[in-house]
Amino acid sequence: MDPRIREHAQVIVTHSVDLQEGDNVVIRAPPVAEDLVTALHEEIGDRGANPLTLSTNERFSRAYLRAADEFETPSHREALIEETDVYIAIRANTNVTEQSDVSPETSAQYQQALQPILAERLSKRWCLTQYPAPANAQLAESSTESYENFVWDAILKDWDEVRTHQQQMVEILDPADEVRIVSGDTTDISMSIAGNPTLNDYGEKNLPGGEVFTAPIPESVEGEVLFDKPLYTQGREVTGVSLTFENGEVVEHAAEKNEALLTEILNTDDGARRLGELGIGMNRDIDQFTYNMLFDEKMGDTVHMAVGRAYDETVGEENEGNESAVHVDMIVDMSEDSFIEVDGERVQENGTFIFEE
Amino acid sequence: MDPRIREHAQVIVTHSVDLQEGDNVVIRAPPVAEDLVTALHEEIGDRGANPLTLSTNERFSRAYLRAADEFETPSHREALIEETDVYIAIRANTNVTEQSDVSPETSAQYQQALQPILAERLSKRWCLTQYPAPANAQLAESSTESYENFVWDAILKDWDEVRTHQQQMVEILDPADEVRIVSGDTTDISMSIAGNPTLNDYGEKNLPGGEVFTAPIPESVEGEVLFDKPLYTQGREVTGVSLTFENGEVVEHAAEKNEALLTEILNTDDGARRLGELGIGMNRDIDQFTYNMLFDEKMGDTVHMAVGRAYDETVGEENEGNESAVHVDMIVDMSEDSFIEVDGERVQENGTFIFEE
Repeated sequence: MDPRIREHAQVIVTHSVDLQEGDNVVIRAPPVAEDLVTALHEEIGDRGANPLTLSTNERFSRAYLRAADEFETPSHREALIEETDVYIAIRANTNVTEQSDVSPETSAQYQQALQPILAERLSKRWCLTQYPAPANAQLAESSTESYENFVWDAILKDWDEVRTHQQQMVEILDPADEVRIVSGDTTDISMSIAGNPTLNDYGEKNLPGGEVFTAPIPESVEGEVLFDKPLYTQGREVTGVSLTFENGEVVEHAAEKNEALLTEILNTDDGARRLGELGIGMNRDIDQFTYNMLFDEKMGDTVHMAVGRAYDETVGEENEGNESAVHVDMIVDMSEDSFIEVDGERVQENGTFIFEE
Repeated sequence: MDPRIREHAQVIVTHSVDLQEGDNVVIRAPPVAEDLVTALHEEIGDRGANPLTLSTNERFSRAYLRAADEFETPSHREALIEETDVYIAIRANTNVTEQSDVSPETSAQYQQALQPILAERLSKRWCLTQYPAPANAQLAESSTESYENFVWDAILKDWDEVRTHQQQMVEILDPADEVRIVSGDTTDISMSIAGNPTLNDYGEKNLPGGEVFTAPIPESVEGEVLFDKPLYTQGREVTGVSLTFENGEVVEHAAEKNEALLTEILNTDDGARRLGELGIGMNRDIDQFTYNMLFDEKMGDTVHMAVGRAYDETVGEENEGNESAVHVDMIVDMSEDSFIEVDGERVQENGTFIFEE
C-alpha cells in the first residue's frame, strides 16, 4: 500500500473528524477506494471505534434509479444515520459517466427523498474526501500517477498554516454586510452576508480544504453571473452557466452545454433557485482544474456560489438559511479583469488579496 | 452480464425473500459480487423497495480485528437492522485466507459483541447466497467457469420439486423423538428432537437450499462423532474434527489440523459446546465438495451438525433452544457403512432414504 494512503487515513481520523473511542462510524466508499477504507479500519480499530462501510457504486445507483419510479425516505437509512457519530464519505469513481443515462428528473426526485437523511448527516462530525482513482484521473486529463500526486499533495499538508493564512479573509468577511463580485463584463453580482458567519475551511469537513465560505441572505442576491469554469454533476458536464438574480431568485438561466440538466437542478424545489453559499478559493496548491468540485472550488483566484441548501453553521441566529434538497457549486475565474468588493472596498483584485500585497 | 446473474437476482427477490413494495432492504456483499448486486438493484427499484448496500470486505475486517482489542455491540448497526425488512447476504471472496492472521480469540470476541445484531437479523426475511468468485473457485479446486456452472446449476432450479422431495423426510423427522447416526466405527451419536419442528429448506433462507433440519434437545446429545469432511472457517481449514458428547456437552474434542481454532470456537460461550442443529443434506445436484458450508451441508449422502445457536423456528414452543454467538456446521459422510435411525427404524442406509428404495 502506498504509504500516503495510511497518512491520508490518519489526517481524516485525527484532524478532520477527531475520532474518539466508542464512536459509531459510517464510511461511505466505492470499491475502488478499498485501500483507503482498509487503512481507515486500522485507525478505527486502534481507537476503539465501531466501523460500518456502505458501498457506493455508480452501477448500483444507475440500476436502481432507472428501474424505480417513486422514492420515499427509507427509514432504515434514517435510523442508521441517527445513531452515527462520525460520517466519512470517500469519493472515487470507476466510470464518472455511469449516471449519464439516468434522467436528471429522477435524480432530483431521489435527492429530494433523501433530503432528511442528508440534513441529519450534516449535523454529525463528517468529512468528505477523495481517493485518486483512475477514472477521476481520466476526467482530470491526467495520468493516474500524476493525479495521485496531485490529490495527496493537496491533502497531506500543514492545515494549521492554511488556517492562519485564510483567517485574514475570514476577518474581512465576518463583520461585513455587502459583497460585490465583478469579472469582465459577464459577472456583476451583489449580495448581503450581514449577520452570517464566515467559516474557515482548513481540511475538516472537506479534505482537501482551502476556502472561506458563508451564506448570502437569500433574498438579497442581485445581478448576473457567468460561471466560466465547467460543472461536472450526475455524469455530465455543464458549461457556460449564466444566472440572473432578482430579489434573490434566479429569473433567467442558460448553459452552453447540458442546459436541461441545469434546469432540472433549479426546478428541484424553491430553494434550488436561490444561493446557499458564497465561497472564496484560497488553496494555491490546487493548481489544476480537475472537474471535481471538492478540489476546483478551493483553487486560488476563484470564487464559487452554490444554488440550494445553506450550511447551518453559515447562517446567523437572527437569519434564515436557504433550504433545499440540492447544493450545487459553480465557479467564477477571478484571475483576470476581476475584483471582489466588500462594503465598498476592493479586497481582491485579479486574484490577489489586499493582505498579500 | 451473464444472464444467469439476473436470473439469480430474480430467484432471490421472488422466491427467497418475497420482496414487497416499500420494503427496506439491506444487501451485504463484497466488491467481487458487484454484478449480482447491480442486478438486485434493478429488481429492488422495479418493485419499489429501498436498497442499502453494506460492503463486506475481508481486508477491512482483518485490518479492524488486528487493530482493535475490545468490542461492543455498535448501536448504529442495531438501529439499522431493526428498521430493515429484508436482509440479503452475498458471500464471495477475493482471498479466502485473508483472515488467517487474525487470532481466533479476537474473532470469537467480535462475534460475541455482534450477537444481538445477528439475532435481530435472523428475525427478518433473509437470504444467504453465493456469488461464484475466482477465489471461491480456487478453494473448490475448480476453474472459475466450471465453478460458475456449479453454483448456478445449484441455484437456478425448480424449488417446488425440491420441496416435494424433501417433504418426505420432514414427515419422518417432525413427529420423531430419537435420532441415531452411525458411520463406520468413528461415529455413533444419539439425540432427542422431540417437540422440535423439522424444516424443509428449499432455497429460501439459504440459496441454494437442499436440506431438512431441526434442533436437538441440547442436553440429550450423547456419543461420539467424527466429522470426516473438512470445515473451512475464518480463513483456515479444520480437518478430522472429533467430538464426544455427554449430557449434551462436548467433553472431549480433537482435530487433525487447526485444533486451536476448534478450541476457540468451542470456548466462545456455554452454548458453543452444545449442538444447535441437526441437518440432512438432500441435494444430489451438489455433487462436488467445495469447502463452502452453504453448499457442502446440502450434499446428498451427508448429515451435518452445528455447535452453537439453534434457529428459533426449529425450537418447539415447549422446548428451550441453544443460545450462542456462534453457529458452526460440520459434516459427516454417510455414503458408506452408515445409517440414520429414527425411533429405532433405519430411514437411511449408505445415503439412500427408505422412500427412495
